Amino acid sequence: MSSPATRPGSAAPTTPHEHFWAVIPAGGAGTRLWPLSRERSPKFLHDLTGSGRSLLQATWDRLTPLTGPQVLVVTGTAHVQAVRDQLPDLPPDQLLAEPSPRDSMAAIGWAAAVLEARDPEAVLGSFAADHVIGDEDAFRECVSSAVAAAADGHLVTIGIEPTHPATGFGYIELGDRLGDGPAHAVSQFVEKPDRERARTYLATGRFRWNAGMFVVRATVLLDLLAQWHPDLAAGLRDLAADPSRLDEVWPGLEKIAIDHAVAEPAAAEGRVAVVPGGFGWDDVGDFASLGALLEDAVGMPGVQVLGDASQVRLVDSTGVVVPASGRLVALVGVEDVVVVDTPDALLVMSRERAQDVKGVVEQLRVQRRTDLT
Amino acid sequence: MSSPATRPGSAAPTTPHEHFWAVIPAGGAGTRLWPLSRERSPKFLHDLTGSGRSLLQATWDRLTPLTGPQVLVVTGTAHVQAVRDQLPDLPPDQLLAEPSPRDSMAAIGWAAAVLEARDPEAVLGSFAADHVIGDEDAFRECVSSAVAAAADGHLVTIGIEPTHPATGFGYIELGDRLGDGPAHAVSQFVEKPDRERARTYLATGRFRWNAGMFVVRATVLLDLLAQWHPDLAAGLRDLAADPSRLDEVWPGLEKIAIDHAVAEPAAAEGRVAVVPGGFGWDDVGDFASLGALLEDAVGMPGVQVLGDASQVRLVDSTGVVVPASGRLVALVGVEDVVVVDTPDALLVMSRERAQDVKGVVEQLRVQRRTDLT
Repeated sequence: MSSPATRPGSAAPTTPHEHFWAVIPAGGAGTRLWPLSRERSPKFLHDLTGSGRSLLQATWDRLTPLTGPQVLVVTGTAHVQAVRDQLPDLPPDQLLAEPSPRDSMAAIGWAAAVLEARDPEAVLGSFAADHVIGDEDAFRECVSSAVAAAADGHLVTIGIEPTHPATGFGYIELGDRLGDGPAHAVSQFVEKPDRERARTYLATGRFRWNAGMFVVRATVLLDLLAQWHPDLAAGLRDLAADPSRLDEVWPGLEKIAIDHAVAEPAAAEGRVAVVPGGFGWDDVGDFASLGALLEDAVGMPGVQVLGDASQVRLVDSTGVVVPASGRLVALVGVEDVVVVDTPDALLVMSRERAQDVKGVVEQLRVQRRTDLT
Repeated sequence: MSSPATRPGSAAPTTPHEHFWAVIPAGGAGTRLWPLSRERSPKFLHDLTGSGRSLLQATWDRLTPLTGPQVLVVTGTAHVQAVRDQLPDLPPDQLLAEPSPRDSMAAIGWAAAVLEARDPEAVLGSFAADHVIGDEDAFRECVSSAVAAAADGHLVTIGIEPTHPATGFGYIELGDRLGDGPAHAVSQFVEKPDRERARTYLATGRFRWNAGMFVVRATVLLDLLAQWHPDLAAGLRDLAADPSRLDEVWPGLEKIAIDHAVAEPAAAEGRVAVVPGGFGWDDVGDFASLGALLEDAVGMPGVQVLGDASQVRLVDSTGVVVPASGRLVALVGVEDVVVVDTPDALLVMSRERAQDVKGVVEQLRVQRRTDLT
């Protein structure tokens, strides 16, 4: 199958990157956004910014100016229909359905193998379906630089300028500058640090957040993978050559994250570059970060509402309110509270305990309340 | 019409007080129990103790051992059907429907006039439909003493032994003992005090809470009323003589509380007695007091649940939960919170701000959200 860019009779995409494809892994349960996010209706399918577009749709909107319709979405079979409904312009053969979750290397590697088979020069950029970007023009400029840096054979990651000493993300240490562009070598990837270490990182000015964004030639990614995980690379290429073997091949693929499988060992060999990005990024990890993304509701200082603010009544209260059931939500004398009101479950939480909602989801899973998780 | 106690063919009630009638004023919006209590479904119609009986039904259950079916309920026309449904054993002609609210003197005085016409020796005991009593045997013993004290022409009130320096109730100061029984003269009624004054009252040992319970011969009450409010007394007696004049007479009746109309001036003349009661009493004024009436839910220290506790999930939280919509209610890291979950409105409140829910109801009334108030 030819790429859309060269398909006879189709218009060339209005993009500066003829061989550039966006890969959007659309997975993850979003447990810390329960009860809004559920296994059957995960985070990426929801409008979490009040923009009118789901995170997945916003990801599409953000990338297609660079790629045209050259987008591959990789998602679980359970979400195929929802993805089709939300992205009507995604060509059907550009939606890859994973029979089961096998971590990020299998998902992105499968897309890479499919692209390599379509276009040996394909460059892919992998961007999660459930992140939020502040300055989209700056983001695309950064991605364009990464595409340029990928052309010479680097695995290129994007290093987000940190705004605070976050302990929830991995960090990337910048090494020497590569050429005249904004790209640097990656000195090292580091795991999620504690607060003290994160402060030290920020003070050096050399560390960036690892948002899991990779830009790389499809063939380079698979060749790097073949160096450390030859069976996985071979399996993915087999799959691309004969899609009918999916149910046979998929369950045997190694379950590993792309960072561990490729990015970290390749960095040690000097094969990874990083393009710093200062465009404002958030992975909307919990309701506290969701609140931080929203403006205060009109006439409600200190209160962020995702949804219809006319459904909220306040007496001396602050916090994050998600009125998602159509009911009235009244707050009286509560500070920094999170209230998420859905048709079958209600969450009332302290904003500072926003990570701990997973404790509720764990209880419900143990109790096999699959109707609610 | 003869009293049930002497009605031919009916068994005499198994009560020591042949002429004693309970009068139950069933009114009040219960605004501070919104969104559970509404204008259309006020507090007295709800089971607020988890007993399986509404406050009105519990009031009936508590009094009928003393009165048999000699009970008059006075309520607004809007609640007549609900009262009939909840009290199927209440004879239809013992339910008085007020065309509009005209305060407690008109409500209780109307009942007194009806009873006086039925039985010149009738003694009435007036007990609100929306209070909770701890020790019901002690309560009935106290009422029996009050009935005895009322026989000699006193207006008898019941003085609740205070358990703390409450600022939300009026107080009654005990005067000299009357005879050999537990009754005392009332030295004075005092309005709701501030905290400091309430502490002083408790320290003296002479003050009791005024729960608005009055026991008095019907004729004595109306004669006392005629002394200070002759038009009101005459109007109520006219109404009892000719019930068909209700819509004509009712709107012209003076709107005044029984305390101001009769109890306070009569106390100044030495006509009021008080029987102290130590039976545990609460007017369930708000969700904080509702929580205090409930035991902690099983396995949930510090959490009181009115309703189905299996619908509640907790992580490090305390408070009062009313799961009244069938939905799951999850609390994470919130202390002393009140969560009231009804099918069309949700309240999340700090327990210490339990009185301030009325601010929400005021907003909704201004906005004419009659569907929610």
